[in-house]
Amino acid sequence: MPTYTPPLRDMQFVMHEVLKVTDEYKSIPRYADIDAETINAVLEQGGKFAAEVIFPLNITGDEEGCRLDPKTHEVTTPKGFKEAYHQCVQAGWPALSCDPDYGGQGLPLVVSQAFNEMMNSANQAWTMYPGLTAGAYAALRVHGTPEQKRMYVPKLASGEWTGTMCLTESHCGTDLGLLRTKAEPQGDGSYKLTGSKIFISAGEHDLTANIVHLVLARLPDAPKGSKGISLFAVPKFRVNQDGSLGARNPIFCTGLEHKMGIHGNATAQLTLDGAVGTLVGEPNKGLMAMFVMMNAARVGVGMQSLGLTEVAYQNALAYAKDRVQMRSLSGTKAKDKPADPIIVHPDVRRMLLTAKAYAEGGRALAQFCALLIDRELNHPDEKVRKDAAELVALLTPIVKAFITDNGWISTSACMQVFGGHGYIKEWGMEQFVRDARINMIYEGTNGIQSLDLLGRKILGDNGAALKRFGKMVAQLVEEEGVNEKMAEFINPIAYLGEQMTKFTTEIGFKGFQNPDEVGAASVDYLRVAGHLVFGYFWARMAQVALREIAAGNTDPFYQGKLQTARFYFAKLFPETATLMRTARAGSKVLMDTDLALA
Amino acid sequence: MPTYTPPLRDMQFVMHEVLKVTDEYKSIPRYADIDAETINAVLEQGGKFAAEVIFPLNITGDEEGCRLDPKTHEVTTPKGFKEAYHQCVQAGWPALSCDPDYGGQGLPLVVSQAFNEMMNSANQAWTMYPGLTAGAYAALRVHGTPEQKRMYVPKLASGEWTGTMCLTESHCGTDLGLLRTKAEPQGDGSYKLTGSKIFISAGEHDLTANIVHLVLARLPDAPKGSKGISLFAVPKFRVNQDGSLGARNPIFCTGLEHKMGIHGNATAQLTLDGAVGTLVGEPNKGLMAMFVMMNAARVGVGMQSLGLTEVAYQNALAYAKDRVQMRSLSGTKAKDKPADPIIVHPDVRRMLLTAKAYAEGGRALAQFCALLIDRELNHPDEKVRKDAAELVALLTPIVKAFITDNGWISTSACMQVFGGHGYIKEWGMEQFVRDARINMIYEGTNGIQSLDLLGRKILGDNGAALKRFGKMVAQLVEEEGVNEKMAEFINPIAYLGEQMTKFTTEIGFKGFQNPDEVGAASVDYLRVAGHLVFGYFWARMAQVALREIAAGNTDPFYQGKLQTARFYFAKLFPETATLMRTARAGSKVLMDTDLALA
Repeated sequence: MPTYTPPLRDMQFVMHEVLKVTDEYKSIPRYADIDAETINAVLEQGGKFAAEVIFPLNITGDEEGCRLDPKTHEVTTPKGFKEAYHQCVQAGWPALSCDPDYGGQGLPLVVSQAFNEMMNSANQAWTMYPGLTAGAYAALRVHGTPEQKRMYVPKLASGEWTGTMCLTESHCGTDLGLLRTKAEPQGDGSYKLTGSKIFISAGEHDLTANIVHLVLARLPDAPKGSKGISLFAVPKFRVNQDGSLGARNPIFCTGLEHKMGIHGNATAQLTLDGAVGTLVGEPNKGLMAMFVMMNAARVGVGMQSLGLTEVAYQNALAYAKDRVQMRSLSGTKAKDKPADPIIVHPDVRRMLLTAKAYAEGGRALAQFCALLIDRELNHPDEKVRKDAAELVALLTPIVKAFITDNGWISTSACMQVFGGHGYIKEWGMEQFVRDARINMIYEGTNGIQSLDLLGRKILGDNGAALKRFGKMVAQLVEEEGVNEKMAEFINPIAYLGEQMTKFTTEIGFKGFQNPDEVGAASVDYLRVAGHLVFGYFWARMAQVALREIAAGNTDPFYQGKLQTARFYFAKLFPETATLMRTARAGSKVLMDTDLALA
Repeated sequence: MPTYTPPLRDMQFVMHEVLKVTDEYKSIPRYADIDAETINAVLEQGGKFAAEVIFPLNITGDEEGCRLDPKTHEVTTPKGFKEAYHQCVQAGWPALSCDPDYGGQGLPLVVSQAFNEMMNSANQAWTMYPGLTAGAYAALRVHGTPEQKRMYVPKLASGEWTGTMCLTESHCGTDLGLLRTKAEPQGDGSYKLTGSKIFISAGEHDLTANIVHLVLARLPDAPKGSKGISLFAVPKFRVNQDGSLGARNPIFCTGLEHKMGIHGNATAQLTLDGAVGTLVGEPNKGLMAMFVMMNAARVGVGMQSLGLTEVAYQNALAYAKDRVQMRSLSGTKAKDKPADPIIVHPDVRRMLLTAKAYAEGGRALAQFCALLIDRELNHPDEKVRKDAAELVALLTPIVKAFITDNGWISTSACMQVFGGHGYIKEWGMEQFVRDARINMIYEGTNGIQSLDLLGRKILGDNGAALKRFGKMVAQLVEEEGVNEKMAEFINPIAYLGEQMTKFTTEIGFKGFQNPDEVGAASVDYLRVAGHLVFGYFWARMAQVALREIAAGNTDPFYQGKLQTARFYFAKLFPETATLMRTARAGSKVLMDTDLALA
């Protein structure tokens, strides 16, 4: 059976030593009083909850899955999920970073993000129930009417009710412009919705008394395509004025998907048969309102794979130290044992360090993004808010796609460390791989993320956002360019930064003539950008470690950090050599293939 | 539901136009009379059997799995498996390439290899039952006593009984030197075996009346480690002199593993409680005898992933043409539809072509290997046999590891083409991914394959085997070096060949001083070698295609082949740029990491 230990030390390193979040919070009035001790204490408790309450339900939840009663349309979640959920709400975890005006605890997103990482290490399927709720909370808090805010937001903040995102229909996923669900106005300000949705995560369950579905649908007079989509709040049970629950709304679960992984989460087919809802935001601007939710969700998906990478790593490391098999090529290491622990083998270490370097690089990026969002939402200076928002927009597809691709690579590598035992369910490793696989798909496939990054975020604003990140790299290069000890970390990113700048201009010109050039390069481009960002954070982490060591700090953590940084630059970052080449290969080798793909 | 069409055209292209197998068979008396028509007719029938009988059992087999009755120790395979197996035996498919002296049909391995590919496309879990049998047949035919040959080999050849390989114990997989199962001589030439085995594929089932287990065990006076291991034939039911079945032998299935995939195959825990067996080969030389089986099995594992890559590709291609979603970046392509088929998107094509290029490259390599084994086993000239054997030994770890790693990449890419639908069981794509994952692990993990390649096969003979392959590359370069049209295919392999030669010398020196240098480079090295081999076969396939086109052949197959070759060299082969760099990174970044891996 797998185990999980919250990586508190590394989280604190990133927050307090690399990003120095509490210094930053001094200029954000809402968070000015928050100190490191408070953050650390919350994370310690959060880690305890994840490891002790949620993690033990991971394998059993996968085995049992969710059950639909086709008569009542009710879904039963795996044994223990409901009790754990009540414990979670009781302890106030869903409200961690919610607005105190709606009963939230008002802690920075940096804290809830770290909590989410741990919850996803513990049990991705379970964590999706409150996870989707956080998105619904954010969308209604920004775009909801006063009535919707009063009625739904406090219940979503506390977790007393959960939320969903109802976008996909069987014929439309990526292309929401094709959707068909209809909303008929009732004359009383409400709407009756009719249609079918699929792939609705946490779409039906027995954890809470009510579920607030946020549903995309078309008004009768709506323009065709994506400009004719509106957003509606459709509760499972209608809500009376006094907040008590009224009649069952006809939004029924009519099927549960059988999936590769995340079995503990109910992926529902929902049939809306005149379900009553209210409009969220402006008519026909539903996609915009939904995007608040979707952006949060995309960062959230990155957190899911970060969590899986960490827990897979921990278990593979433990196994590699425990399992004895063969002798080291360079001579016996464990004379007292019948064979050496497999951690003596170079390639076993490569697999372990791959997961470690991706987990720790991902954590630094994720925490940085959370800090940016804290700035974006709460900094008093508008210019600071705007700059932060632009950088978040740039980094979001990287968090989503790069961290989830790395999560796939890492969980698979960690499973490989176990040999045949990794393929067997009881060890838990293959579940991490299966669960991680969805993260490359939902909330916009990683291919879509790469088009969002290169097409919209980078070329769409003539590279301005990229330059903003480039400035951060340039500043680090300037700071440390003469420091010999930092050369091994600084030189690769300085060189890659230059290459990327050139290539971005190049692809901008080519894409102008033929947009398929952008689509042909985008996936490789995103991975290059991901390595530039990870390289930057690894250099910053190495910088802190070197400074501590120079100052006489003997905590082995810092030497370990340096060793991991060296591994990252020697074994993972060089992927960019190939990616720059394949990104440059152009669209012809892909598009001029009709006979190959006949 | 997925579909499968046997890729007969491409198989025939490889056999008859690239490798020209029947020309080669003219110098092998046993096969001198075989013509292309015969081969094609057999493959057509074989493809029909795979697609119509075995493929429909793939998803149902995965869903149902195998069931063990703990009282009787009997295993029930999924519905339809048994009937399909009887049909298979009736039609003589297991005997395809078996020796006519034992009732086989005596066809070349090239034919049975192609048949295996199709069977694995259709249903890997099912195909493992006869697949393991082929290994047992081979081991007993070479190392069996006359009595064992008489008793077992014809039954294994026909498939009337199946065979297994019982190597692994819970504490020893890779490191067979640690194994503990004991064999006590009984004075009558037989032995009583006691111990526990795990991970025994096809280890118990209801398909046949008897199962012949080949079991590794220790004699009482055996030396420690891998030099004290002997091989035994242990039938499930003892066999009387007249060939009828006798008493149940106490080799019982005491558990079935719950696995990520290949659910339709029974992965058994076997308990031997004084089971009676007979010695195969010399005492304490069991590993050598088992290696006959293991080498065949390793090539067989490559075939499994080749099959999965092909079937995943076919389904992703069909889906990409059918599914409409978004418009092409370069302007609407299907004006009559609400959106364009997703095959218009460059990155969707990249995913499809990745699978296609890996499938067709793998097929060329696999067929070439089969041809080499036909030479090795049956060519009248000893020198030819020896040369062929050396080349097979070199290529076996590449077939096993490179094709299975590519299968993982390809099945995952094909699943990604389906978006959210790829994650849902009913589409069948996620099963291909789950099934493909075991192939990187069993019959020696891909890490072990890379050590076998670099440590034993290449450095172990001072690069002689590699030079043999290098000569084939050099010959092609010489043939086509002045042909401008071939430059795009020839230059990359010529350059990589030089780089590899240099690097091999380099790593030889470094490894002499520190063997961990070999372990640190080996996995990257194997992938480089894989691309050199695939690059060579892609160049040869392009050569044939160019010649046909030049000769006025208008079959679009050849243009399609060229397009795929161009894609391969532009988008997949450049992975070697990174791999050469990471292979050179040395052992220090991996081994000097004790604090990182604390």
